Amino acid sequence: MIGRLNHIAIVVPDLGKATKQYEDLFGAVVSLPQNLDDHGVTVVFIELPNTKIELLTPLGINSPIEKFLERNPSGGIHHICYEVADISKAKSVLIEKGARIIGDGEVKIGAHGKPVIFLHPKEFNGTLIELEEL
Amino acid sequence: MIGRLNHIAIVVPDLGKATKQYEDLFGAVVSLPQNLDDHGVTVVFIELPNTKIELLTPLGINSPIEKFLERNPSGGIHHICYEVADISKAKSVLIEKGARIIGDGEVKIGAHGKPVIFLHPKEFNGTLIELEEL
Repeated sequence: MIGRLNHIAIVVPDLGKATKQYEDLFGAVVSLPQNLDDHGVTVVFIELPNTKIELLTPLGINSPIEKFLERNPSGGIHHICYEVADISKAKSVLIEKGARIIGDGEVKIGAHGKPVIFLHPKEFNGTLIELEEL
Repeated sequence: MIGRLNHIAIVVPDLGKATKQYEDLFGAVVSLPQNLDDHGVTVVFIELPNTKIELLTPLGINSPIEKFLERNPSGGIHHICYEVADISKAKSVLIEKGARIIGDGEVKIGAHGKPVIFLHPKEFNGTLIELEEL
């Protein structure tokens, strides 16, 4: 079912500083920041040869990553995203096998405009997993 | 400096259960477990089309991931690994720019038999980063 690793999402307390670090220390190419108002985050993308890293920081009030940053003031890896060919089919298989989908269990449109679901980290080795249809 | 994402390392409390989960729920191909006695871990590899996931669990006494598991009983993402072409050069650049190398600052031979260094998570957005020469 799972295909490529689409991205690793890392929450950072200071997006400017983190961008500069990836550029200056690691020699990586980092995109310009994008405000995703509907998702309450500002994001930059680091394109690696085989996948991408997303650096996220809270945007506006009630950002969904605000609490994560309170618990992890230095930042931290928030989730990893695997690609699937058919999100509805993936969801059915997972529910049938007893996995918990986060939220109301419905497929949502994620930050990249693609259909996504998130799986509960308690059941997946403390790892928040996003599945994204591509 | 950084190239491909080599792997994501996830510490798991029960390697058999985690293996079964990736196989049965995600349809992934998981390698047989390998005991890395010198590193105090048992590991399986999940080959994705573009990178790999390593599931680690403690092996023997004084495993370096024992404390991580105490703090994170469900498991969690332990580190991510970026490839570099020249680890000594990478190390020099990083030290020159003020980054902290974990341990005595020397290049070590990592779990894959390649030269590696680890960077301090406090300075890198709460993310433990391994650089591996390939």
